[in-house]
Amino acid sequence: MPPGIYLDGNSLGVMPLSAHQAVLRRLGEWQTQAVSGWDEWFGLAETLSPALGKLMGAAPREVIATGSITANLHALLATLYRPQGERRHLLATALDFPTDVYAMQSWARLHGAELRLIPSRDGQTIHEDDLRLALGPDIALVLLPTVLYRSGQRFDIARLSAVVHQQGALVGWDAAHSIGAMPHDLHASGADFAVWCSYKYLNAGPGAPGGLFLHQRHHHLAPALSGWWGNEKETQFEMTTQFRPAPGAAAYQQGTPPVLALAALEGALEIFEDLDLHALRARSLQLTDTLIELADLHLPEMRVLTPRDHARRGGHVSLLHPEARALSAALRARGIIPDYRSPDILRLAPVALYNTEDELRETVRVLRGLLDSGSHREVDVSGAVS
Amino acid sequence: MPPGIYLDGNSLGVMPLSAHQAVLRRLGEWQTQAVSGWDEWFGLAETLSPALGKLMGAAPREVIATGSITANLHALLATLYRPQGERRHLLATALDFPTDVYAMQSWARLHGAELRLIPSRDGQTIHEDDLRLALGPDIALVLLPTVLYRSGQRFDIARLSAVVHQQGALVGWDAAHSIGAMPHDLHASGADFAVWCSYKYLNAGPGAPGGLFLHQRHHHLAPALSGWWGNEKETQFEMTTQFRPAPGAAAYQQGTPPVLALAALEGALEIFEDLDLHALRARSLQLTDTLIELADLHLPEMRVLTPRDHARRGGHVSLLHPEARALSAALRARGIIPDYRSPDILRLAPVALYNTEDELRETVRVLRGLLDSGSHREVDVSGAVS
Repeated sequence: MPPGIYLDGNSLGVMPLSAHQAVLRRLGEWQTQAVSGWDEWFGLAETLSPALGKLMGAAPREVIATGSITANLHALLATLYRPQGERRHLLATALDFPTDVYAMQSWARLHGAELRLIPSRDGQTIHEDDLRLALGPDIALVLLPTVLYRSGQRFDIARLSAVVHQQGALVGWDAAHSIGAMPHDLHASGADFAVWCSYKYLNAGPGAPGGLFLHQRHHHLAPALSGWWGNEKETQFEMTTQFRPAPGAAAYQQGTPPVLALAALEGALEIFEDLDLHALRARSLQLTDTLIELADLHLPEMRVLTPRDHARRGGHVSLLHPEARALSAALRARGIIPDYRSPDILRLAPVALYNTEDELRETVRVLRGLLDSGSHREVDVSGAVS
Repeated sequence: MPPGIYLDGNSLGVMPLSAHQAVLRRLGEWQTQAVSGWDEWFGLAETLSPALGKLMGAAPREVIATGSITANLHALLATLYRPQGERRHLLATALDFPTDVYAMQSWARLHGAELRLIPSRDGQTIHEDDLRLALGPDIALVLLPTVLYRSGQRFDIARLSAVVHQQGALVGWDAAHSIGAMPHDLHASGADFAVWCSYKYLNAGPGAPGGLFLHQRHHHLAPALSGWWGNEKETQFEMTTQFRPAPGAAAYQQGTPPVLALAALEGALEIFEDLDLHALRARSLQLTDTLIELADLHLPEMRVLTPRDHARRGGHVSLLHPEARALSAALRARGIIPDYRSPDILRLAPVALYNTEDELRETVRVLRGLLDSGSHREVDVSGAVS
């Protein structure tokens, strides 16, 4: 663990010792076995599918650890987004993480269609009525976040997937801010696809391999952007010019998997093996409840952006303040690691696996002191990127 | 180093200690600094560009370490391949590595066009005249390997790029089997783009991040498949819905880079920093000359597929034999690591950085013994994948 109070697990989770050990083990295999290590690594990504399936509420064949959110969106949009007649446009929200918007813009442009963005009434949250309003017979596919990365607003995957389906469009989810923080029920929700990264609540390291979910009903499709690692294992080394997709989500792998990075994910997932995800979520809500209460009580000038309703709340709490950037830097200088999102949001993620109420009280106490003294205004905030 | 004689550096290079150290250093940063490590990692991929530029004969802005060969081909084809009128089809060779074919097939399919494959007269090499024959006014883009992965035939990048350009098409190169084995002069050659992996002669580990080259003349284009890590660094964390491409090849990054995997590449590249690539190539040719001579002399029943002409030879030597698979397995059982490619090729890569003539003599001696005794026919070859 880094020293101090770490409240940025929704940006980069801390390093589990099991991840460290797994990387060392794979490094050792490379060192001593070199190419023969592939006998062990060949199906490595697939061995993680049961654990990912448990986290996402999906069958192992519906998920695979591969690529990044962006790369996986490109692969899935290339396959699933097929504009036909009037039904040709894409829909996302105005508050999505930028890479989701860029990926959707890319495919709208390639098909000569539009990406429409569901507007936000308050600049921080999305009203479900506005999703309904934006849905029409000209929308082919919708991408939604499970949890908004800034305000922490959570969406109901099953209900909203049904709303989109009723209108005849496909729906995908970016689960970056919910995987590892709460249970999911992707298969039963009927969602068409989902993508996620593994370096937030999953603690799999900076830039760890992402993952994707593709509902079983789409497994008859061949991936539009194929690569040799998506070939069925049995014939991959026949190396023919005929791509034969692996069964299920695994077909969306493209290049040779990054073994050292996968190893960190492999180790990080061990922590979730015997974990009750409902208990994890209950603990997360307990911590964010506490933090919201403390903020209401002691930080009245910082508005809590995160919904108070449990059903609409993700794993972090966002506080609005015009000096958020300087407050974030000043906290860091005092050994408390929050996260700042331009232009005025301080994000605090009390992670169920490793944060405590005492840490939250201390954080709010220090924030109160900064706001009273104004000393955060003296901190140099240039150059910070995370 | 793995024990014994390692002749498979063209499949997976051995682990440099500098790569091991770099991974441990980055792991340590994650452990002790967590998210603050991003101050160090934010521009990590870009810091490798001068070293990659030197290896590829390109300006640093023309190259970037990112993705995989497949992912990078998808990103580059999405941008550069724009069928217009009659000029709409793609061209590759019948002997390409399968993932190149799959990526090209993907984009031909998305555009309702064809991928044509230049045939091989002998099943092992491609005749340049057949490239000329296949080029016509209906070809929009050609992908060629710098070195064929099976026979080891090398192509002249500058001459063939000019041939393709004369016919009005774009040309890209898969440099997987030449990067780190010989010097390149990509910028001066006029090639439009190139892709490569880093786990063969670069020794950056299993599934290490690949790389791409995009000639400066194409830097005015915006990447068709964009992602937030391809945004210019200065505005990336403004997180707007407006993608602003980074200058040059760096714009083709998509997701957050895999720091632990990049670290191995970072360490592996140290070895090439002060290396004279012409001397490296001369040593490689010396070793493959020796191996071809030994094979001619002692293994007359194994036909040497690799061209004898230095200008047409890559870094490995391929020997044809109907029992290649069993011979490969028998060599491995005796501590000599070659590589087998279905159905009848034994590949031997004497790598300039770490192999010796003595190792080649011993390998040929053992092979001779196997062929004489027939004992390789008793080896179980099931299950080997690499």
